[in-house]
Amino acid sequence: MGVKQKVRVGMIGYQFMGKAHSHAYRDLNFYFDNPLEAEMVVISGRNEEAVKEAQETMGWQSYETDWRKVIERDDIDVIDIVTPNHTHAEIAIAAAEAGKHIITEKPLALTVDEAERMLAAVEKNGVKHMICHNYRFAPAVQYAKKLIEDGRIGRIYHWRANYLQDFIMDPNFPLVWRLKKEVSGSGALGDIGAHSLDLARFLVGEFSELTATMETFIKERPIGEMTGGLSAKGDSSNMGEVTVDDAVTFIARFKNGALGTFEATRFAGGNRNKNKFEINGEKGSIRWDMENMNNLEVYFSGDEEGLQGFRLINCTEEVHPYAGAYWPPGHIIGYEHTFIHLIDEFLRGIHGNYQPSPNFVDGVRNQKVLEAVEKSAEEKRWIELD
Amino acid sequence: MGVKQKVRVGMIGYQFMGKAHSHAYRDLNFYFDNPLEAEMVVISGRNEEAVKEAQETMGWQSYETDWRKVIERDDIDVIDIVTPNHTHAEIAIAAAEAGKHIITEKPLALTVDEAERMLAAVEKNGVKHMICHNYRFAPAVQYAKKLIEDGRIGRIYHWRANYLQDFIMDPNFPLVWRLKKEVSGSGALGDIGAHSLDLARFLVGEFSELTATMETFIKERPIGEMTGGLSAKGDSSNMGEVTVDDAVTFIARFKNGALGTFEATRFAGGNRNKNKFEINGEKGSIRWDMENMNNLEVYFSGDEEGLQGFRLINCTEEVHPYAGAYWPPGHIIGYEHTFIHLIDEFLRGIHGNYQPSPNFVDGVRNQKVLEAVEKSAEEKRWIELD
Amino acid sequence: MGVKQKVRVGMIGYQFMGKAHSHAYRDLNFYFDNPLEAEMVVISGRNEEAVKEAQETMGWQSYETDWRKVIERDDIDVIDIVTPNHTHAEIAIAAAEAGKHIITEKPLALTVDEAERMLAAVEKNGVKHMICHNYRFAPAVQYAKKLIEDGRIGRIYHWRANYLQDFIMDPNFPLVWRLKKEVSGSGALGDIGAHSLDLARFLVGEFSELTATMETFIKERPIGEMTGGLSAKGDSSNMGEVTVDDAVTFIARFKNGALGTFEATRFAGGNRNKNKFEINGEKGSIRWDMENMNNLEVYFSGDEEGLQGFRLINCTEEVHPYAGAYWPPGHIIGYEHTFIHLIDEFLRGIHGNYQPSPNFVDGVRNQKVLEAVEKSAEEKRWIELD
Amino acid sequence: MGVKQKVRVGMIGYQFMGKAHSHAYRDLNFYFDNPLEAEMVVISGRNEEAVKEAQETMGWQSYETDWRKVIERDDIDVIDIVTPNHTHAEIAIAAAEAGKHIITEKPLALTVDEAERMLAAVEKNGVKHMICHNYRFAPAVQYAKKLIEDGRIGRIYHWRANYLQDFIMDPNFPLVWRLKKEVSGSGALGDIGAHSLDLARFLVGEFSELTATMETFIKERPIGEMTGGLSAKGDSSNMGEVTVDDAVTFIARFKNGALGTFEATRFAGGNRNKNKFEINGEKGSIRWDMENMNNLEVYFSGDEEGLQGFRLINCTEEVHPYAGAYWPPGHIIGYEHTFIHLIDEFLRGIHGNYQPSPNFVDGVRNQKVLEAVEKSAEEKRWIELD
Repeated sequence: MGVKQKVRVGMIGYQFMGKAHSHAYRDLNFYFDNPLEAEMVVISGRNEEAVKEAQETMGWQSYETDWRKVIERDDIDVIDIVTPNHTHAEIAIAAAEAGKHIITEKPLALTVDEAERMLAAVEKNGVKHMICHNYRFAPAVQYAKKLIEDGRIGRIYHWRANYLQDFIMDPNFPLVWRLKKEVSGSGALGDIGAHSLDLARFLVGEFSELTATMETFIKERPIGEMTGGLSAKGDSSNMGEVTVDDAVTFIARFKNGALGTFEATRFAGGNRNKNKFEINGEKGSIRWDMENMNNLEVYFSGDEEGLQGFRLINCTEEVHPYAGAYWPPGHIIGYEHTFIHLIDEFLRGIHGNYQPSPNFVDGVRNQKVLEAVEKSAEEKRWIELD
Repeated sequence: MGVKQKVRVGMIGYQFMGKAHSHAYRDLNFYFDNPLEAEMVVISGRNEEAVKEAQETMGWQSYETDWRKVIERDDIDVIDIVTPNHTHAEIAIAAAEAGKHIITEKPLALTVDEAERMLAAVEKNGVKHMICHNYRFAPAVQYAKKLIEDGRIGRIYHWRANYLQDFIMDPNFPLVWRLKKEVSGSGALGDIGAHSLDLARFLVGEFSELTATMETFIKERPIGEMTGGLSAKGDSSNMGEVTVDDAVTFIARFKNGALGTFEATRFAGGNRNKNKFEINGEKGSIRWDMENMNNLEVYFSGDEEGLQGFRLINCTEEVHPYAGAYWPPGHIIGYEHTFIHLIDEFLRGIHGNYQPSPNFVDGVRNQKVLEAVEKSAEEKRWIELD
Repeated sequence: MGVKQKVRVGMIGYQFMGKAHSHAYRDLNFYFDNPLEAEMVVISGRNEEAVKEAQETMGWQSYETDWRKVIERDDIDVIDIVTPNHTHAEIAIAAAEAGKHIITEKPLALTVDEAERMLAAVEKNGVKHMICHNYRFAPAVQYAKKLIEDGRIGRIYHWRANYLQDFIMDPNFPLVWRLKKEVSGSGALGDIGAHSLDLARFLVGEFSELTATMETFIKERPIGEMTGGLSAKGDSSNMGEVTVDDAVTFIARFKNGALGTFEATRFAGGNRNKNKFEINGEKGSIRWDMENMNNLEVYFSGDEEGLQGFRLINCTEEVHPYAGAYWPPGHIIGYEHTFIHLIDEFLRGIHGNYQPSPNFVDGVRNQKVLEAVEKSAEEKRWIELD
Repeated sequence: MGVKQKVRVGMIGYQFMGKAHSHAYRDLNFYFDNPLEAEMVVISGRNEEAVKEAQETMGWQSYETDWRKVIERDDIDVIDIVTPNHTHAEIAIAAAEAGKHIITEKPLALTVDEAERMLAAVEKNGVKHMICHNYRFAPAVQYAKKLIEDGRIGRIYHWRANYLQDFIMDPNFPLVWRLKKEVSGSGALGDIGAHSLDLARFLVGEFSELTATMETFIKERPIGEMTGGLSAKGDSSNMGEVTVDDAVTFIARFKNGALGTFEATRFAGGNRNKNKFEINGEKGSIRWDMENMNNLEVYFSGDEEGLQGFRLINCTEEVHPYAGAYWPPGHIIGYEHTFIHLIDEFLRGIHGNYQPSPNFVDGVRNQKVLEAVEKSAEEKRWIELD
């Protein structure tokens, strides 16, 4: 494999999405044989204490409190934008002008006009650009795309997507930035509905027309910390207006003749992050649900009579995009985290001078059970354990 | 947070489990505020080319081809053993004698005698030790443990566990080391049944007695590469004897009076890695399935009449052990990998000088849809997209 | 219980719905202690051979080939209308004028005007009337209604309903009456969408406004038998126009402020009869799916932190409406049919003079296994069976 | 179809199973074109009041309080035995001697000796005989049998069956006859385990050997009504010994080399009647669960790589045994009960002189929504409802 060529990254922003992106830079080359390797050069944020902690925790080499300084640096090839939505345009355009490749969180901007100016800037400056519609990249979704492109589903008749959350249902949940139009552009629509419509464009095609309705169920909320934090609590003596939608529903027609239904809401109790879709085509159907992201359900109308039914496919095999880089089939993505937790306990035991579990005592006891099983099988009798 | 105290790790072995452990050292402090930080000092393996590649890919500082040299090094605090089962005892005892903390893959050893000598060694030398029963550390399993300890399930009546795989069902699958008793100790029993019985001990308690049967359905296989590789293909002109079990079933009684049923097999088609259990107690029941590892199903007999039923709990909230370190509720463990794949595509675009997708063009198109939705909702009419 | 008062029924029509209604009259008093008992007096249809066979198979006392004669009879208290949609109005109005109680299949009529004339007729004549929105009467749906009325879900935010079928996806499926607007009024909309909107009105409340789109994917079909048969095959040399919708999607607002999304289609491959809905309210959520009609999924946001999740409730207990009249909990509706099949086999054996299975030979063999289990448990050893 | 030849039935017993069998006689010819038709001549039971009510409710022509009188009658062709287990042998032998065909509930008898005498009696007298292992007759199970016989699964490696109930977990549940060995023979074993082992014999083949363990978790219970009632409550001041098993687990080997695991228990909270099994063969796997009895899950290892997964098959199509006699595909068995409930409401309205719902008012309102949908689709705009 040898030493890889480095691409030097500067990240603007450091919260939820900053963590997700930082993790990706850290682990990319651990799993994948990418020709480049990311060097996590600098992270920036206005709150020095917070950005400094993020820098250390996430493994960045340095930090800045002014994003412009990041863009001005010569030792940066890529600008990664994970700030609130209203700042994307200014940062991206500046980064493009500075000749940096750009990756930004979605939605791209607050308005089409802003978005078009951003696109013009990257095109003018000849830099590479991506927008983080990450759900496209679940192995099951990539595999769905392949099935569609290979004609396995045939002409598409229906797309139906729900993106359901419930984290702001409590009327005391505070007026965070995600609930202010001037910062976030919209509510459920831009935050989660944007993912559904991007998946629709990815898998079905371009929209032809649509009709929609939006609703804000809780119109005033306590003014709290204007952070992106999802679990903050507000102060009910000081109320402010919610200026974005709590929920949006729309029906659409695609250019290829398919019908689409969409629903994005933060008021669907019990659905923490239910991002799901179903596609019905002339030859088959496909279903996916982020809460079981490794699975894809696929139906083929050409299957033998009597044996037609949705197949529950665990997309963890070599043939499933990206999956081969991870663990053996059936060891779903996320399996690796059980080891992190175990090592966490191990290191705590070493540091705190206590003996963590499971340990060699368990090893001995387990071995006694294993041996009893083998002895029982051999001697065909019950074996007692001491 | 500040600079952490380092614990210096040497790993013996580098394949499937080596990758899982390496990942844990890499990412532990990214997610968790552990007082220690692992320094990935050295990895060892007999095949120099392979271990060198593992060293680079997984991020170890150096490599060795003789595990004894790792143990002899003064700059190593922890020995992590991920070699085939028959080597665990010798390495662990040597590591203990050298005063190293030890973490080893399961099963601990090939025999109870070996296991007891290993335990004696770590106890004599006062080192910390762990055995990698990683499934204990899934947040849902940890939460199940808490519910049981809090008395929420009451007296336990039943434990039933299946660990079902299907990766060796093809008779042409070769005679890898996992199918030779002298290397692996046993087959399905030690490899996967060991996890089930450890979970039983963790959640239910110690065994009292058991009776078992084992079977080898395919008794001869082509002699292939004696590696741990799970997808190798053999040569049918040169057959060797399978000396371990393909499947084991047993029933047991626990010291607390519960009944247990166990089944571990590599011949359960369609079950890639189906590690699941159900517990029935006097006040409730618990179900878990590794293929949906973020979920826990919990039943309480004390729930209101008419509303009794298994609750499907997505263990991704602050209150669920380890889960708070990751993503917002409902964003299951594994969510972060979608970003790795996206960044993989981004860097390939930069390296290969092509424009990856989704990009700002998608951002603009998506923004047009978002704007159309808002306009439609406002004007209460269909909006066409160009 | 004693001899019940009879209510004398005349049925107009005899196909799919005729069978479902006939079964209900037959079995009502078997399960329920209804104060009345239906006497199945007469069934009518234009095709004498077919209606005669229906009369015999379904257990009606007589038949007619002219529905007017049924209505004219003095010995009829109830008229049950299961004919195609375009005939409902004429029959119902005549029946009302004749002073008969009326039950009719849905949709009530082809137009609002027709429907209003029907309503006026029953009201003028003081007869009882029902429309067969049978899904309201699934125990799980009745229980959902009760939970909502008891305030357990609180203010309702969302209703989403899909009614998905796939029986006409084959372009060679013929132009049956259900595909002609003059007979059926509409396609997926009136046939299945009507059920979804009725369930919405039952569980959420009245509509305020809506916007919709409809599509006919296959615009011409072979002209075949103009029956209601669902499996007929057409002749492709003689094509006719499909004049109803294959699919409809709409979004709505309810008077109580809830948002609704609806989709009814016959082009959703793999969904044979997927009639499902989800309701999200301020205190909880409810999900139901006809394909698992005995189950109800219920979520309460007031459940203890960490233990919040959808409960899968098998609505087969005394407390669930109608369920107590059937079998013990967990023996779902439909359980009884396994006995019909067994008795079918038994009677065929008697008639055909062969010995059906399972029989006393199986009884003996099973008993030997039972005895072996008991002996094994007692003697704690393996028992061989001969 | 014409007038059918009658077979005259006398039933001994009238409780839970009496109801299930009576229903089958009533409805057999409604659904199936069986060459015979059952005449429900006489039902018998010792409690005159109860048996008289059963006679009326279930539609028997007469009743007896002494079963011997039923057997002595010349106008009876078939004896159907649904009494407690300890009476099966005496009744069946007497019926066989009287030349009656016999159908009996399971288990056949209390002992192998009894069972063999019963078999000898039916064989000597040349009568037809069946034992009611009704689960064999679920369409999905019959279809599973067909797949196995057609070689679609290949050599069978594994059978695993759970039959889990929870109806006696409350220690105050009384000492009903099912808990007394002298009446029922055994507990969970004979009551529900018997079904699992019969399904195993039906689908896998004969047993070779087995080893088992049994447990009675609650050893004393209040002496209550010694009926078969499943919901009785006992008197805790008067306790008696439970003499049957609460739970049994066993592992087995079949003559064809397959391994089997079995668990039958009445102490599995949340599992009301969880009768399920999984079969793993060399070419595929099959799963079934009575709580979703219309579904069968089938896996084929020969499916295309990447698209392998369990198919969820709704066994409601013509090709699925027995299913064609019912409703269109996807309208699961049990669908018909929604109509019974609706008719129940209708007749109550007529009797009680109130107007039941849904009625023509709903019909009109629904029609207005349907019309609004059509108008909205046509005019492409929101439509208000009054």
